[in-house]
Amino acid sequence: MSEPTLRCDIGFVGAGVMGKNLILNLADNGYRVAAFDLDHQKLEAILAQDAAERGDQPARVVACTSYTELLSKLTSPHLIVLSVPAGKPVDDICHKLIDAGIEADDIVVDTGNSLWTDTVEREKSYEGKFIFFSTAVSGGEEGARFGPSLMPSGDPYAWTRIKPVWQAISAKVDPASGKPIERRIPGQPVTEGEPCATYIGPTGSGHYVKMVHNGIEYADMQLICEAYQVMRDQLDMTPQDISAVFRDWNDGVLNSYLMEISAEVLATADSDTGLPLVDVILDKAGQKGTGLWTAVSSLQLGSPAPSISEAVYARSLSALKSERVKASSILAGPSPQLLSEAEKQTTINALHDALYCAKVCVYGQGFHLMKTAGAEQGWDLNFAEIAKIWRAGCIIRAVFLQSITEAYQRNDELENLLLDPFFAKQISSYQQNWRQAVANASMAGIPVPAMSSALNYYDAYRTAVLPANLLQGQRDFFGAHTFERTDQPKGRSYHVLWSTDERSMTRVK
Amino acid sequence: MSEPTLRCDIGFVGAGVMGKNLILNLADNGYRVAAFDLDHQKLEAILAQDAAERGDQPARVVACTSYTELLSKLTSPHLIVLSVPAGKPVDDICHKLIDAGIEADDIVVDTGNSLWTDTVEREKSYEGKFIFFSTAVSGGEEGARFGPSLMPSGDPYAWTRIKPVWQAISAKVDPASGKPIERRIPGQPVTEGEPCATYIGPTGSGHYVKMVHNGIEYADMQLICEAYQVMRDQLDMTPQDISAVFRDWNDGVLNSYLMEISAEVLATADSDTGLPLVDVILDKAGQKGTGLWTAVSSLQLGSPAPSISEAVYARSLSALKSERVKASSILAGPSPQLLSEAEKQTTINALHDALYCAKVCVYGQGFHLMKTAGAEQGWDLNFAEIAKIWRAGCIIRAVFLQSITEAYQRNDELENLLLDPFFAKQISSYQQNWRQAVANASMAGIPVPAMSSALNYYDAYRTAVLPANLLQGQRDFFGAHTFERTDQPKGRSYHVLWSTDERSMTRVK
Repeated sequence: MSEPTLRCDIGFVGAGVMGKNLILNLADNGYRVAAFDLDHQKLEAILAQDAAERGDQPARVVACTSYTELLSKLTSPHLIVLSVPAGKPVDDICHKLIDAGIEADDIVVDTGNSLWTDTVEREKSYEGKFIFFSTAVSGGEEGARFGPSLMPSGDPYAWTRIKPVWQAISAKVDPASGKPIERRIPGQPVTEGEPCATYIGPTGSGHYVKMVHNGIEYADMQLICEAYQVMRDQLDMTPQDISAVFRDWNDGVLNSYLMEISAEVLATADSDTGLPLVDVILDKAGQKGTGLWTAVSSLQLGSPAPSISEAVYARSLSALKSERVKASSILAGPSPQLLSEAEKQTTINALHDALYCAKVCVYGQGFHLMKTAGAEQGWDLNFAEIAKIWRAGCIIRAVFLQSITEAYQRNDELENLLLDPFFAKQISSYQQNWRQAVANASMAGIPVPAMSSALNYYDAYRTAVLPANLLQGQRDFFGAHTFERTDQPKGRSYHVLWSTDERSMTRVK
Repeated sequence: MSEPTLRCDIGFVGAGVMGKNLILNLADNGYRVAAFDLDHQKLEAILAQDAAERGDQPARVVACTSYTELLSKLTSPHLIVLSVPAGKPVDDICHKLIDAGIEADDIVVDTGNSLWTDTVEREKSYEGKFIFFSTAVSGGEEGARFGPSLMPSGDPYAWTRIKPVWQAISAKVDPASGKPIERRIPGQPVTEGEPCATYIGPTGSGHYVKMVHNGIEYADMQLICEAYQVMRDQLDMTPQDISAVFRDWNDGVLNSYLMEISAEVLATADSDTGLPLVDVILDKAGQKGTGLWTAVSSLQLGSPAPSISEAVYARSLSALKSERVKASSILAGPSPQLLSEAEKQTTINALHDALYCAKVCVYGQGFHLMKTAGAEQGWDLNFAEIAKIWRAGCIIRAVFLQSITEAYQRNDELENLLLDPFFAKQISSYQQNWRQAVANASMAGIPVPAMSSALNYYDAYRTAVLPANLLQGQRDFFGAHTFERTDQPKGRSYHVLWSTDERSMTRVK
């Protein structure tokens, strides 16, 4: 039999950056992939890369020119993976697969950044036609190629079929150290270690969890940017200087992939001008929606994630470039203060601790949100497992995730990460510097919205009596919205007859 | 002819707190109202109050027992006002009015806190059956009774019919001082002054503007609560002491209805226990959605309103009472510092200035959001007119609104209120104390999320180069998201080949 008649294990639609790398990752792990993309050049590129990397093995990827051909190349029941932009393209392809003859026990796995409620709708709408399953993927280009973090959810039968595939291609963690096992060489998959792929729960839950992951990622990135801005604008440090600080931080509790690449970016020179690269990059941030969705969900569910919202707003504000440039010459700030070297070092140290504490709060907000959503949706989320699969492969990977894993292993009912004894103690010892960093930035006129919203979150969360008593008084005054009393059982509502002289209290219910 | 056969001018559905007061306000202004409510006792109460207040005039309100009767009592074409909870009840009543024989040129005006997109849908869905118009109402119970602020939008023909009614019953402003003309006596309408009722624009725009009004209201209330908490928890002041400070502030630039009633609430004793009322009110805030909608809209439109979001989150956090009580014994804060009387006074003065500056930012955020939404929806919003009708009648009324009116009268294209020369100068002179207040609260462990998010907003808005350059570098590193260059024309995208040793730059588009 000649090569092309061999059936493929997996069908794959979408050969963009992520798709291409997932396909090559599957191939590295011994899976034969039949691939389709409207842009045939993209498929050719994959075939070429496969040829260059596979050595003397037979071709591991087959390019198809239609959905019908794609299905015909696969073993039955079919397993088809989509890597296409979220939204309409997903449904377009599903309908084309139906036209091409996909069957009821075939499985289609969406790996895009889909809105979780769309995933729930899709599972329902394709029921009986095929099994719609989803897997959220984190790790960017490199993760897709050498091991992403995978958050699958949906039909349990589909999961049993996909599980060995996802566990093979996912990132791996060394169970002894809790750290990622590095892989950067094509054709050499990592077969030992703990795979970063775990079943999250019912349909939609995996994409919800990934959405929150991205919300956390937004805030993580923003916090690093805030530290950078203080060093750049208040301490007058060069990108190289700041890179050195970040490299140093990356060796301690702040170790993370994002810290590592921030140090890399800051150390990089522009190949055109020789200037520091960051100085030629325009300060207008893009966004693709997942951070925004997280912020909206936190508002809707009443599970506060202010630092994630601030990170989303920071990107929006960056996009208002022309307004900012105009405002910079109109709006006054404080006069710059000259700092001694010792004062600079104190400021840098304070930023380190602020970053750590704010990061704990961001994760506290994110996990609290997942807990609230899980309770509302009836998902039985396992937070230790979620933290575990974020230890490698994904963008927010960090040694820190091992501590979160341990916190939830100690207590899987933890209401907030902040309440875990380890983190409570860490913050207690770092908090003075955190406060100092926020106060310093406020006085110096440098915006630190994520860092300071995290501090306000922390201080509000640990306040037994918030000023909402006055707020309820205001609401009752102008709108008869009623309030509860501290000395009466829960659920009883009271109203003051404000327009009378006696202002007597009445029980409403 | 006997009294009851007189036709009524206006039909009214919904005799709740707001409905009742709007009906009596209409009556005071010479309109005869036919009223319907499923709860006939509520109608009886209105008839009784009308009888007590109308003196020797004929009855001004007629109670109806069905929608058919309601229509039969009205002059044609019918004008019917709804004051019912937002959402399904509005549509239920519309359908019942259709069943009862409402006609194509009849007008139904929704005055509830409807989501603006629902209003847009409704106008479409009732087209040809009757004219669905909407008017957002602010002012709470008292405003409804003696003069609310009204934000009508929709069909221009309907507006011409409703205009005299709304201008009659709305709050009035003394054009000389820009201050509200007080009215608190039944049967004595204010007929002079500038009415707080202006046509906002196409369908939905009035409710959108009212939604933002409420978002601002949330933040306004939260700011006052933050000042209260600092005085209560850091300065150990009694409610009476704090009330005196608020009363004092109410005489200056911070004059507002919310400041006035905050002082009132703080000075009120509980009629049951004799304790200060605020001390027996439980610190769990309720919310009805409009603040949340504003925050969500600002996230979606990319027009940052972080202080409004923080106010929404503050209410959510207050609702997590049992978690907070638990956290209060686990999470460490700074040790309390003893302050001298002079230091206390300095802190109070700083709070005053912080409140003022933060308030300008909150209004800046709200008006920026309306401007962004208006541009997106094609509404031609007149911000000077909007500020004008908020000067009296509504919950956020304040002398401050006169300054906003003047800012937009000077420049109706103003990109942000912060850029108006008057406000820019005010903030410039107050900002040092604002920074001090935020820094003080950070060090003292008192949450001031709205006050400090406003400062971060201000500082970010006036930053010509935000750290989003590093953020774009991060995004390009892990996700090939590309960036623009500062030295190249807008719209060109670049990507660095991060995995190569040279890290050369390529132009993507």
